[in-house]
Amino acid sequence: MIVSALLTSVGINTALCVLFLTLYSILRKQPSNYEVYVPRLLVEGTSKRRSHFNLERLIPSTGWVAKAWSLTEEELYSLSGLDGVVFMRIITFSVKIFTFAGIIGIFVLLPVNCWGNQQQDIDVGNFTNNSLDVFTISNVNSGSSWLWVHFCAVYLVTGFICLLLFYEYKDISSRRISYFYSSKPQPHQFTILVNSIPTSSSSISDSVESFFKELYPSDYLSHVVVRRTSKIRRLLNEAKNMYRKVSQSRPGPTQQKNKHGGFFGTFGQKYSHIERYQKRLEDIEENVRLKQSEASLAGEVPARAAFVFFRSRFAAATAFHLQQSVNPTRWITELAPEPRDIYWPFFSQSFMRRWISKLVVVLVCILFTIMFLVPVVFVQGLTNLTQLENLFPFLESILTIKFVSQIITGYLPSLILQLFLQLVPPAMDFLSTIQGYISLSDIERSATTKVLWFTVWNVFFASVFSGSIISMMSIILDPKIIPGKLAIAVPAQASFFITYVVTSGWTSVSSELFRIIPYIFNLITGLFTSPDDEFDVPCMPYYRDVPRVLFFGLLGITYFFLAPLILPFVLAYFCLAYIIYRNQFMNVYAPRYETAGKFWPIVHNSMIFSLVLMHIIASGIFALKKLSLASTLMFPLPVVTLLFNEYCRKRFLPIFIGYSAECLIKKDREDQNDATMNEFYNNLVDAYKDPALIPIQYSSNNDSLSSPLISQLNAEEQCNSIIG
Amino acid sequence: MIVSALLTSVGINTALCVLFLTLYSILRKQPSNYEVYVPRLLVEGTSKRRSHFNLERLIPSTGWVAKAWSLTEEELYSLSGLDGVVFMRIITFSVKIFTFAGIIGIFVLLPVNCWGNQQQDIDVGNFTNNSLDVFTISNVNSGSSWLWVHFCAVYLVTGFICLLLFYEYKDISSRRISYFYSSKPQPHQFTILVNSIPTSSSSISDSVESFFKELYPSDYLSHVVVRRTSKIRRLLNEAKNMYRKVSQSRPGPTQQKNKHGGFFGTFGQKYSHIERYQKRLEDIEENVRLKQSEASLAGEVPARAAFVFFRSRFAAATAFHLQQSVNPTRWITELAPEPRDIYWPFFSQSFMRRWISKLVVVLVCILFTIMFLVPVVFVQGLTNLTQLENLFPFLESILTIKFVSQIITGYLPSLILQLFLQLVPPAMDFLSTIQGYISLSDIERSATTKVLWFTVWNVFFASVFSGSIISMMSIILDPKIIPGKLAIAVPAQASFFITYVVTSGWTSVSSELFRIIPYIFNLITGLFTSPDDEFDVPCMPYYRDVPRVLFFGLLGITYFFLAPLILPFVLAYFCLAYIIYRNQFMNVYAPRYETAGKFWPIVHNSMIFSLVLMHIIASGIFALKKLSLASTLMFPLPVVTLLFNEYCRKRFLPIFIGYSAECLIKKDREDQNDATMNEFYNNLVDAYKDPALIPIQYSSNNDSLSSPLISQLNAEEQCNSIIG
Repeated sequence: MIVSALLTSVGINTALCVLFLTLYSILRKQPSNYEVYVPRLLVEGTSKRRSHFNLERLIPSTGWVAKAWSLTEEELYSLSGLDGVVFMRIITFSVKIFTFAGIIGIFVLLPVNCWGNQQQDIDVGNFTNNSLDVFTISNVNSGSSWLWVHFCAVYLVTGFICLLLFYEYKDISSRRISYFYSSKPQPHQFTILVNSIPTSSSSISDSVESFFKELYPSDYLSHVVVRRTSKIRRLLNEAKNMYRKVSQSRPGPTQQKNKHGGFFGTFGQKYSHIERYQKRLEDIEENVRLKQSEASLAGEVPARAAFVFFRSRFAAATAFHLQQSVNPTRWITELAPEPRDIYWPFFSQSFMRRWISKLVVVLVCILFTIMFLVPVVFVQGLTNLTQLENLFPFLESILTIKFVSQIITGYLPSLILQLFLQLVPPAMDFLSTIQGYISLSDIERSATTKVLWFTVWNVFFASVFSGSIISMMSIILDPKIIPGKLAIAVPAQASFFITYVVTSGWTSVSSELFRIIPYIFNLITGLFTSPDDEFDVPCMPYYRDVPRVLFFGLLGITYFFLAPLILPFVLAYFCLAYIIYRNQFMNVYAPRYETAGKFWPIVHNSMIFSLVLMHIIASGIFALKKLSLASTLMFPLPVVTLLFNEYCRKRFLPIFIGYSAECLIKKDREDQNDATMNEFYNNLVDAYKDPALIPIQYSSNNDSLSSPLISQLNAEEQCNSIIG
Repeated sequence: MIVSALLTSVGINTALCVLFLTLYSILRKQPSNYEVYVPRLLVEGTSKRRSHFNLERLIPSTGWVAKAWSLTEEELYSLSGLDGVVFMRIITFSVKIFTFAGIIGIFVLLPVNCWGNQQQDIDVGNFTNNSLDVFTISNVNSGSSWLWVHFCAVYLVTGFICLLLFYEYKDISSRRISYFYSSKPQPHQFTILVNSIPTSSSSISDSVESFFKELYPSDYLSHVVVRRTSKIRRLLNEAKNMYRKVSQSRPGPTQQKNKHGGFFGTFGQKYSHIERYQKRLEDIEENVRLKQSEASLAGEVPARAAFVFFRSRFAAATAFHLQQSVNPTRWITELAPEPRDIYWPFFSQSFMRRWISKLVVVLVCILFTIMFLVPVVFVQGLTNLTQLENLFPFLESILTIKFVSQIITGYLPSLILQLFLQLVPPAMDFLSTIQGYISLSDIERSATTKVLWFTVWNVFFASVFSGSIISMMSIILDPKIIPGKLAIAVPAQASFFITYVVTSGWTSVSSELFRIIPYIFNLITGLFTSPDDEFDVPCMPYYRDVPRVLFFGLLGITYFFLAPLILPFVLAYFCLAYIIYRNQFMNVYAPRYETAGKFWPIVHNSMIFSLVLMHIIASGIFALKKLSLASTLMFPLPVVTLLFNEYCRKRFLPIFIGYSAECLIKKDREDQNDATMNEFYNNLVDAYKDPALIPIQYSSNNDSLSSPLISQLNAEEQCNSIIG
């Protein structure tokens, strides 16, 4: 790739970003788009729909940037919990790394690289015609002592990153502990989930009670047996849809407000319609109530799982950490997730079935990751011009235009790849759900890891080894040749990854701001439904964004000494991400759960992996450049890095698994004199009630249900200036 | 190798075994050898030295075989604890396997192998001149359908072994639990060891007390801070040696008994001698007392570790399972070992130092295992005839005799290898001691694993790949070619391993009975000391014998379908071991600790490894024999075996790590009404007192100390008939 091509690409993508940001700053001010761009503020009531038209709406503004910039970490913490803070920490951490690495890369390594003359085709006169290889390590002469500069840079940056990783881990674990100390009594702290309860002659509920009363006579409080509610859940969904239909067929709330007296009066033609729906809805509700009472009367077979409540956090932790039963595959205990975090349709199956489903999912994941490129390549093969002309004959005239055909042949394959890639996070999320996790947060964390490995394999390694699965597998299966192969293949892809950062990175983060898909979805649904329908505030899809951000970190780390030119672009990506994600946390996403920073170990591991990968490549490069001493001296670095990782695992990881006895007992003592605790204990059972078993009341009480909407609309005139 | 050579080898070794057994049955009846052959009975007082001479003593007898045979498992359990039972289980388990595999091997596989004619040089007329290869799978024609018989045999035997492994694991874990249920309250059940206690302004003792009193106000009992006592221990050893010298210089107890009145009266010439020793002894004792009082007054820096005692087993288990401190590298808790099992000079260092020493030991172990053959080959190279003649010129005349030179060149290298191999278990044991384990049992278990891997690498793989480290490493580093290389190399060594079982196996087990080294040691010391000196009953060196027995199991499993001829010899080995080890448990070894079966997981893992190794070899063989379908169909077998192993890990392994809450609480309840518990609690502190801090009294109280010896001698005339 030549410099001018890179400059063109940077130019186009900068223009695209600016366009996105400008569009965003205009569109977010349109009331019809509030649900897309400020759903969080809308629901919280801090932002109201302003129907008055004014010119300001059409002028792009930068107020939101200043607001996002000035957000403090404490504010972010109160908005999005520790998970939001941890996510932003990934970005600030990366900014720090790449500022440091960038200074070394641009001011030290880049001149050294340009100084060499291994690449013969340098055209000094015409700078922009030079190959980008001039700026990479490939240009340094073989055996040149200048390579020691790269060697030192690798050591220096590794040391810096490890130091930063240590302090970051330390800081986040102390934040996690202080989060625990400052938290009010929360149901999940007093609860464990028991699985694989053995079936006996007595009912599940009785055997749970007798087992835990026997073991923890003073600490056992009560329990809730988990029921199988998939049927009820299906009926509930049906009821909800029906209710939506009913309320859509009904007059809009503004009209309704004016005509409180006669409901069915003026809408004769819709009458029969609504009545029919109303009837159906009542039928379904009756059915639901029947099933619910059946389930609570244990008429249906309950799942062999139960939530068990204890009087103290310490007792719950004890029951979690100790093996309960003589048979380790029975009475398996887990820490209960937060009530809002529970994935209710979870596998409440026996030990064996959960274990097997986990194995199967892991296997499917591995196959999916390895084989992913096969169908993509196949589909890409289908989309050549002749095929297209055969499939869609009417396009023939357009396809013969050279420009169009170039666009199609050039962009269609990569568009297909991108579309397939977009499907990966949801697919991995789905795989994690059937893996048997009981909480949404566990599912998302598991999906995050899966997506991360998927990206590393299918984007990094597939690009490096030009996508042939067989050649990739043969390299992986022959560990001796890995450094050598990487040393040849990785630098060759430097220019590809520089443009990848610019195109894929910058675009992905600005489209995150722009929220294209929700925007389009909103446009379409806006045509059919009234804008005042209920809507859910989205929650941050960590399983999609964490791997993406981490992958750019990996690219930056592995390429920093090979092609330092990548660093400014990576840095720009992270700066953009810094502003945009902060803005999204403020306006768009509401937290759905609080893992209190459990995402950080994934980040740490990913960084360590990036470092070791860089060391392997460096070792291979130095061997290739005939500087075998440097190649040998590179060997201690991954070892020390892995030891450092091992130390961190011992020093910090336990904090992210469970709280220590010291913390738990301290918190328990604090509560002892709290008079409200009795009430809290009484509410525990309700907190872990399956939402499917909560009585529903759509049909007979329509007006009161729509009241929140009405009150929301009444406040319509109250303007506020949050949307700048 | 030809059949006649094998027959010769079998003949010689059978003769050797018979000789050993005969010699043993005579020698054990000589009173001077009681300390070697029946030390356990001697100390227990069930066997007494009979000084009356009778002819019976010189006639070999088989009574001991019958006694060993008739020992029930319950008797063995009461004699040697669950560890002894588990050790014998390894042998009975192997006998079962190899009976089953032997029937298949000899009656099905062997005829199939002989039927083939791949090996062209069969001499039908002269059976004994045939190569042993005729009986191996190498003789089956390539691509022959008869190979499916081998295929089925592999599946069948794997299934049988897995089934047996499952029931054995189940049985031993239930024995472990019933051992716990039936045990009396034992100090280690109520105790944890705390390590890495943070240094603060207050003393270690105070901070332990305040920390645990804070966390476990109702369950905390007391604690003992571990002192650094290496100096005192050195002094104590000195005192002991001095005391031995004094008592040896003194008149023999029989003489002393007759002359109770005047001690120094009749031994004028020894007087000054004894007085000098006596003086030295008193000095040392004074010194010890000084150091001891210093240590208890905390004048010396205490180790940052303490034993903490709890009122209940459950509380101790809770403190072990839960992370205690906010910082996971502080207040690290371990289950306390039995008081007799503690390795007192343990590393009571900080978290970091223990961790680093562990890493270093693991590294040294790996290097030692991989590099072991280098010095051996070097030393073997030194021992050629010319070198010997140069070193010892006086041997020249003998070395020229052809027979002698043949013996030397033939046997010396293997003798050197054997000598080096004998050093491995103690070396590994030493490495484990500095690894930071706090109990002898942990040290021995760790050493067992180390010795096992060492043997597999240096005997199995080194023999198979003819000892070149570089070729071995290159194969290990290239996993794709492993099955192919193994398939070529392993069958080629069949005859070597058959003779290995006969020579090394049979000899090692009969020399275990004969106890050559202790016998020689006893002969030598018998010349200098009186036979009535104190002596320790040896304890079973599990770290030497478990790997040895398991290695023969591995040989049997990997070779059963390649060369079924090995099976009768392996079976004979295990039958011999069955009788001999039972005899040794009865007469020689006393248990030094009780891990309650913690050795079994090592056995289980080793068996699984053997199975998977066999599958890899089988897959390679079938590919080599051009039966690629069988090779492919072999693939699911290791996967299923590993899954089975994973299931066993989940189902049984937790039982071997800690007891469940159910067990602990049940036992605690039993003790609640026990009036003796208060006394037990009071004695806990003394149970975990460092023996180096117990006051000693050698010098001023000589007569009372030697009294046990006297009483033992007084009972000399009491004969009993236990020694048959």
